[in-house]
Amino acid sequence: MMKDFIFSNTTKVYFGKDQLQHLSEEMSKFGKKVLLVYGGGSIKRIGLYDRVMEELNKAGMTVFELPGVEPNPHHTTVNKGAAICKKEGIDVVLAVGGGSTIDATKAIAATAKYEGDDCWDIITGKAFVPDNLPIVTVLTLSATGSEMDIGGVISNVELNDKQPMFGPTLRSNVSFLDPTNTFSVNAYQTASGSVDIMAHVFDVAYFSAQEEMDMLTRMQEEVLKTVVKYAPVAIDKPDDYEARANLMWASSWALNGFLFSGISQDAVCHMIEHEVSAFYDITHGHGLAIIIPKWLTYILNESTAPKIKRLGVNVLGVDTSLSDMDGAKAAVAALEILFFETLGLKSRLSDLGIDDKNFALMAKKACGSKGKLEGVTTLTPDDVEKIFRMCL
Amino acid sequence: MMKDFIFSNTTKVYFGKDQLQHLSEEMSKFGKKVLLVYGGGSIKRIGLYDRVMEELNKAGMTVFELPGVEPNPHHTTVNKGAAICKKEGIDVVLAVGGGSTIDATKAIAATAKYEGDDCWDIITGKAFVPDNLPIVTVLTLSATGSEMDIGGVISNVELNDKQPMFGPTLRSNVSFLDPTNTFSVNAYQTASGSVDIMAHVFDVAYFSAQEEMDMLTRMQEEVLKTVVKYAPVAIDKPDDYEARANLMWASSWALNGFLFSGISQDAVCHMIEHEVSAFYDITHGHGLAIIIPKWLTYILNESTAPKIKRLGVNVLGVDTSLSDMDGAKAAVAALEILFFETLGLKSRLSDLGIDDKNFALMAKKACGSKGKLEGVTTLTPDDVEKIFRMCL
Repeated sequence: MMKDFIFSNTTKVYFGKDQLQHLSEEMSKFGKKVLLVYGGGSIKRIGLYDRVMEELNKAGMTVFELPGVEPNPHHTTVNKGAAICKKEGIDVVLAVGGGSTIDATKAIAATAKYEGDDCWDIITGKAFVPDNLPIVTVLTLSATGSEMDIGGVISNVELNDKQPMFGPTLRSNVSFLDPTNTFSVNAYQTASGSVDIMAHVFDVAYFSAQEEMDMLTRMQEEVLKTVVKYAPVAIDKPDDYEARANLMWASSWALNGFLFSGISQDAVCHMIEHEVSAFYDITHGHGLAIIIPKWLTYILNESTAPKIKRLGVNVLGVDTSLSDMDGAKAAVAALEILFFETLGLKSRLSDLGIDDKNFALMAKKACGSKGKLEGVTTLTPDDVEKIFRMCL
Repeated sequence: MMKDFIFSNTTKVYFGKDQLQHLSEEMSKFGKKVLLVYGGGSIKRIGLYDRVMEELNKAGMTVFELPGVEPNPHHTTVNKGAAICKKEGIDVVLAVGGGSTIDATKAIAATAKYEGDDCWDIITGKAFVPDNLPIVTVLTLSATGSEMDIGGVISNVELNDKQPMFGPTLRSNVSFLDPTNTFSVNAYQTASGSVDIMAHVFDVAYFSAQEEMDMLTRMQEEVLKTVVKYAPVAIDKPDDYEARANLMWASSWALNGFLFSGISQDAVCHMIEHEVSAFYDITHGHGLAIIIPKWLTYILNESTAPKIKRLGVNVLGVDTSLSDMDGAKAAVAALEILFFETLGLKSRLSDLGIDDKNFALMAKKACGSKGKLEGVTTLTPDDVEKIFRMCL
């Protein structure tokens, strides 16, 4: 039976190709000084930087900048941004980019309200900050769902650590989702982002704990089917508006709270993958693509088989007449074909230059202070290490 | 192609069987004086009135009451509530009931901020009120979606008129959705409410104008399938929690903005039905059940057939191998079996004691000042009158 739950999502979303014209009016509601946060400069290549600056100028805002946010954003970058906010009296932070940029921006928004100067204190729970600066987002990659959720993930490269950060106010106040801003996303990032969307559905809902609400289970499958249908289209035809729009809205809804109403969110696969990208700085979605099929194979048993088969039948075209066990195996095989043939991702960690030397430590860290990962099948460090070895 | 859109829904929903304990903390955020609005007293029979009063007392609130809100709530009742708000300096209005009670409460919340004393001025656009008192809802019927949307419908019995009222702030700040509060809803109201949920999906999205977003079209179908599956269960076993919970969450999501992101909302069927319940005070959902199949039959042609057939195939078990035209006819037939056999509603307006004497006037009023109802097929008063006659 589903659990009681609270649903509340206050992000105002402007979706579509002609919506950025509203950025100035939305920004000016928050004040005069903005910190503009972005990544490696792709937003300049596609003309988005100029377009955003034009809106900020129209709003009469003073703009401070934090460029260079890394994929798997570093806590030191967050600290740099927070220091600017404090020194300059920033009113609002504006993320223009993908999940890494938005996650960093959320952490900056919180750390700006922290009397200390290291965001890692907040992320590790040493300090509690109940408030943050307002957050506005212009999304350029369909993947993490950070544009409409209450969390982010920050990496501490000194410690090889990568930790999630959550808070009820750590949500974009306003998000601009223009599918045309993802036309320039290359095949590899489109594929990785698409796997990330699917992984959110798997991790926080579909393969999470036992609770189910029938309508939502089927809506989870619709988000998954959306990705299965449109990720190959977007790779094949990067400027296909329908494909990019469906992927973008799927990204937001995979993780904005609706699909997991009343369901425990375990996020087992994410916890496992975070160790890989913490140690090796690989693309999160690519790590997930390698891990998910092996994880499903590892947890496959008589009790998990029906749901894995259901995924196959309802999302991946598996024949419904197969037995639960054979249907589940066919579902995993179909996922592998999707990830590694259709979407063109590498299938093994060794393909990414990763060997087994850190596996034991990574498995231990993945299981955290509880010493286990609770989920539809609870995993010990030993289990996680075995899954890593299957991925080699 | 889908249109650009804004998605924003600020209602905080407490969903589940043990959530009403949070009513006191939520209410006390808004002040000390509450106007409690409810209907015919069923909330006293099921013990909900006492439970709500207990929470309001716990919050130390002074409670004023407006009982007796009618189904198809009257504008005079709204005016009565608004007068109490002004006289007593009410801080927040609390609706405990179904869609009629919530709609009346929304209109009261707005009229309380109006310098005039007649809500009909606002509803007809003669006056504009940009603000309203905070609104809190405890839902007892899964049907109208008013618990999470921005509108309501008010009837003027003096004028035989029934008009919708919309406004970006006319939304419950907090809604309590406890499926057990719908256990006592009888078979007739469960059936009518279920048809209303389906009608919202048809009217504002599925059979609305041409735009489509693939993911959402399929999610609309999931809401429809949820009703098709669980309405009979709830009628057969009124205290089935899963059935009541799925219907309740379906009700909210049918009309809270998500399903029609980027789609024109025509609401043709609702505009037609409103004339019937304005003239004859029948149950809205029952009127819709009679009208929908005839409306679909009337608009069936080569261009509309594929979507009507798709409804049949994806939601109602119609054979996919049929031609578009035959599949569409089979879909309408399946809807009639659902409404009039499975859910047990009467199939003709004459069964409700309605004859054709007002049809011409009702058809003219349905088409409003534009003189037509725009939708997937635009209807003139002559068309609407023909549909009424098909319903006799």
